[in-house]
Amino acid sequence: MHRYRSHTCADLRPDHAGQAVRLSGWVHRVRDHGGILFVDLRDHYGITQCLADPDSPVFAEVERLRAESCVRIDGVVKRRDPALVNPKIPTGEIEVFIRALEVLGPAGDLPLQVFGDQEYPEETRLRYRFLDLRREAMQRKMMLRSDVIRSLRQRMWAQGFREYQTPIITASSPEGARDFLVPSRLHPGKFYALPQAPQQFKQLLMVSGFDRYFQIAPCFRDEDPRADRSPTDFYQLDMEMSFVTQEDVFAAMEPVLRGVFEEFGGGRKVDADWPRISHADAALWYGTDKPDLRNPIRMQRVSDHFRGSGFRVFAALLEQEGTEVRAIPAPGGGSRAFCDRMNAWAQKEGLPGMGYIFWRQAEGGGLEAAGPIAKALGPERTEAIRLQLGLGEGDAAFFLGGRPAVFEKIAGRARVLIGEELGLTEKDRFAFAWIVDFPMFERDPETGRIDFSHNPFSMPQGGLAALDGDPLQVVAYQYDLACNGYELVSGGIRNHTPEIMFRAFEIAGYGREEVERRFGGMVNAFRYGAPPHGGCAAGIDRMVMLLADEPNIREVILFPMNQRAEDLLMGAPSDPTPQQLRELGLRIVKETA
Amino acid sequence: MHRYRSHTCADLRPDHAGQAVRLSGWVHRVRDHGGILFVDLRDHYGITQCLADPDSPVFAEVERLRAESCVRIDGVVKRRDPALVNPKIPTGEIEVFIRALEVLGPAGDLPLQVFGDQEYPEETRLRYRFLDLRREAMQRKMMLRSDVIRSLRQRMWAQGFREYQTPIITASSPEGARDFLVPSRLHPGKFYALPQAPQQFKQLLMVSGFDRYFQIAPCFRDEDPRADRSPTDFYQLDMEMSFVTQEDVFAAMEPVLRGVFEEFGGGRKVDADWPRISHADAALWYGTDKPDLRNPIRMQRVSDHFRGSGFRVFAALLEQEGTEVRAIPAPGGGSRAFCDRMNAWAQKEGLPGMGYIFWRQAEGGGLEAAGPIAKALGPERTEAIRLQLGLGEGDAAFFLGGRPAVFEKIAGRARVLIGEELGLTEKDRFAFAWIVDFPMFERDPETGRIDFSHNPFSMPQGGLAALDGDPLQVVAYQYDLACNGYELVSGGIRNHTPEIMFRAFEIAGYGREEVERRFGGMVNAFRYGAPPHGGCAAGIDRMVMLLADEPNIREVILFPMNQRAEDLLMGAPSDPTPQQLRELGLRIVKETA
Repeated sequence: MHRYRSHTCADLRPDHAGQAVRLSGWVHRVRDHGGILFVDLRDHYGITQCLADPDSPVFAEVERLRAESCVRIDGVVKRRDPALVNPKIPTGEIEVFIRALEVLGPAGDLPLQVFGDQEYPEETRLRYRFLDLRREAMQRKMMLRSDVIRSLRQRMWAQGFREYQTPIITASSPEGARDFLVPSRLHPGKFYALPQAPQQFKQLLMVSGFDRYFQIAPCFRDEDPRADRSPTDFYQLDMEMSFVTQEDVFAAMEPVLRGVFEEFGGGRKVDADWPRISHADAALWYGTDKPDLRNPIRMQRVSDHFRGSGFRVFAALLEQEGTEVRAIPAPGGGSRAFCDRMNAWAQKEGLPGMGYIFWRQAEGGGLEAAGPIAKALGPERTEAIRLQLGLGEGDAAFFLGGRPAVFEKIAGRARVLIGEELGLTEKDRFAFAWIVDFPMFERDPETGRIDFSHNPFSMPQGGLAALDGDPLQVVAYQYDLACNGYELVSGGIRNHTPEIMFRAFEIAGYGREEVERRFGGMVNAFRYGAPPHGGCAAGIDRMVMLLADEPNIREVILFPMNQRAEDLLMGAPSDPTPQQLRELGLRIVKETA
Repeated sequence: MHRYRSHTCADLRPDHAGQAVRLSGWVHRVRDHGGILFVDLRDHYGITQCLADPDSPVFAEVERLRAESCVRIDGVVKRRDPALVNPKIPTGEIEVFIRALEVLGPAGDLPLQVFGDQEYPEETRLRYRFLDLRREAMQRKMMLRSDVIRSLRQRMWAQGFREYQTPIITASSPEGARDFLVPSRLHPGKFYALPQAPQQFKQLLMVSGFDRYFQIAPCFRDEDPRADRSPTDFYQLDMEMSFVTQEDVFAAMEPVLRGVFEEFGGGRKVDADWPRISHADAALWYGTDKPDLRNPIRMQRVSDHFRGSGFRVFAALLEQEGTEVRAIPAPGGGSRAFCDRMNAWAQKEGLPGMGYIFWRQAEGGGLEAAGPIAKALGPERTEAIRLQLGLGEGDAAFFLGGRPAVFEKIAGRARVLIGEELGLTEKDRFAFAWIVDFPMFERDPETGRIDFSHNPFSMPQGGLAALDGDPLQVVAYQYDLACNGYELVSGGIRNHTPEIMFRAFEIAGYGREEVERRFGGMVNAFRYGAPPHGGCAAGIDRMVMLLADEPNIREVILFPMNQRAEDLLMGAPSDPTPQQLRELGLRIVKETA
């Protein structure tokens, strides 16, 4: 017989009755039922009920067993009495009579129970992660993560992509976030950097002729921790293709992602149709570039109805340039109680309030528009608004006005809240949309300077000619995939032409020399026959969070850092030795108050 | 028609004759044959011959094409004249008459030609890696690497292993090499480290109940560069299993590795039988713990034949304790010329020489032992040696004596050389052996102190009791897999018992506190029900080097560092900005002469 096990704890069935077996695993719990000791033995695969009665040669040893000790049990399989069958587990029809026992790894007092659903502070869970991870829910989430990545790989392979590893110890890359630096010992005083993303390398791969690349790529950003973000490293499904348009990238990614969501979505509906929505439309309709399309509410411009109207606040507002009034339709929200609650929410968010109209049955029958705005606006304009928004009795609409840049985000949040409150947002569904035509540049509201609004390496639509007009009008071949309110994918068709790149950077205030210095490796490569290319990167942690329905990224990572970017289990970061510092030619500067 | 291509450059066949097609790729070369211009258009998938005659509307543009420019060609497929068919390429039966042409990415003067076999200095190749990688041989090697890794994954999955990612920014790990450090911005003055291997994390995974783990894991060691070693990051197939013996690990790995060598070995023979050889036997037989078993030569101890013999040098030597004489049989090496050449080699290696006997036909017929040793030893002892080694006419034997630790390595190299010179080492074969029973400890020849000879985390055979005897006699459940003279895999059954671990470290001179401080995360985990576990790691770069028959690791890595650990393409390492140093609380110490 094998030294440790003849079967796993999920293997035994009534067919095995009478067999002598050997199991190894952890003591999930021990119960004493009328002098008979029941040991639930757990391994990665399942649980098997073992038992010892006072006649057992090892009864005394079983009595001393402690929870979470790792043990080997030799015993004989018996069918359970039909009344005692547990249909919830695959081994529920049998039990194992313990004949011999070996403690392989004893357990001390537990700082965290594996059995049961007790909740523990995150610090405890991270410090004793090896116990936390034994819990069934954690085992399941980590297996889900592993299986999702496996499936992504298989689906990419099936589409003719090959995985290539790009360097991890490399040069500082300019993705916008902070680099992690790695001091060089062979070149003291100089530093490598960990890649924020393999962006430049994947583009170099295209210039090198590799046509279709992907990688489950570790990415490193020295960012301040957040619940949905790892403060150190995270993983992306990174991909790039040559000789493609934007639609080719979508066509490559859609079956991969749809397939994974269908495979691991647990029966939740996965939309078949993934609309393309321009960045401008997304801002107008949803107040965000990562809309949750499970919520059917679409905002609309209603400025014309308010211009010169009796509702003075908006009428006056609209006389200023660049202002608008937008409506959030709220089907089913037509009660004063609901409208007042939303108004109060808006005030809590720092707005003076959120005006509304709601439609109810008039006392004498027929439709009546209620609320202060309706009164000030008059029946004709109010009715025109109702018709534009397609609302009726029992519905409401909320209104926000001003410069869109100022109120768009809060309008988006109001839309989300209204969708939730009115039960309009479908649960158990994954809704996707490609957000396209991102603006290439934006004006910094404080400095007034023009800068890249997203990826500086994207190709401006219209090429060099487009860059000669108003930069704020230029849209790029740059896109995101939104899923249920999250940005799941981001990508673009790249700028593979040095001249267009220099011009784009010039608009953003970067001189030729600075571009050569910062991105010289890639720009230089573009001078030797660069193919048109594009791609994207999908956040894997985010994907697993959505599939596992977990808002906290640390729930889908084996050994995450805590929110202060510390590893409590391994003790990182820690003090270097004087010799290490000497070898690296570094000295620590003590903070002076 | 698609913006860039209707087909790849490997797609077109005689069936396509008459079709209008669109191809995109690189100008591999342009030839002028009697006024007709032939353009070999190349992409990732293949080459298609395109041509333009003076009547073509784009003849002048084709004339101006430069090698390695990236172009789009529209044209019509024609069958080639049977006399002009090129059977060497899949598209050799057709050609494409160019109708339109678009330069997608022009190429300047090339510092490195893609077409042809010209050799370039490595610095040039690395600086212009994007051109170097376009060469067919490089494309093939990178695809091989990608396909090997894919196959490894599939084979591990098929055996019930799941891949889990372990942290990359973590704590300093004590694997024996130097860590790369990463300064922390949130905790100035403290450092993370990049893992030399996921050793502790994979063991924690076993303690966490994950049973069968693998990972294509990036590993980081700040080592001085060598031809067969990356100076920064490299990849391992890392795996670990719970509730296993050494043979279980072998049984899991053998089909995976054998399968990959069979799949990608290009028809080279892959041994079916992988012997287990003890570390002590490997040292005796092959003079190394990574023997090349394609070479059938096995060394033997022959001390007894020399003890008290007329061959004074060895007889005197053997009177000292701990000395031995070993023979290297050289079947077919029985000529004075060969023996003298080997002797001269030994002298060049710093030995006084390498004594030998060779057997030839005596002048009167029969067998004659020749060489100075035979004379001094006398016929009886010489014959006994011949019989022990199983040699005959036309064969030779070489002898080395002294303390094995001193001459073992050079004996091993002599064995390799003899095997090569005599054509005994089979080419086109992959020969594997598990080297087992590594010593747990060794004595530092200089300080006389006892230290771990390999992995301190391996379980000593015999457990705690074994550690109470002579530490130098303790062997560990630690093993390597040797393939063709390389160490391909290294692993062990781990020590999962804190008490045995403390005792082992104590023998190596590490106090309890230091163990707790350096490996506290893992040791602490072992107090909460640790399962017996073991595993190994296989070097992926090494595997691909063997399969590609490349002695230089930089030939199987996309963007390798040079031998001074510099990335010439991206410009790494580089100077940090003052702000970066300030954020990290670091100052660079200028070297003082």
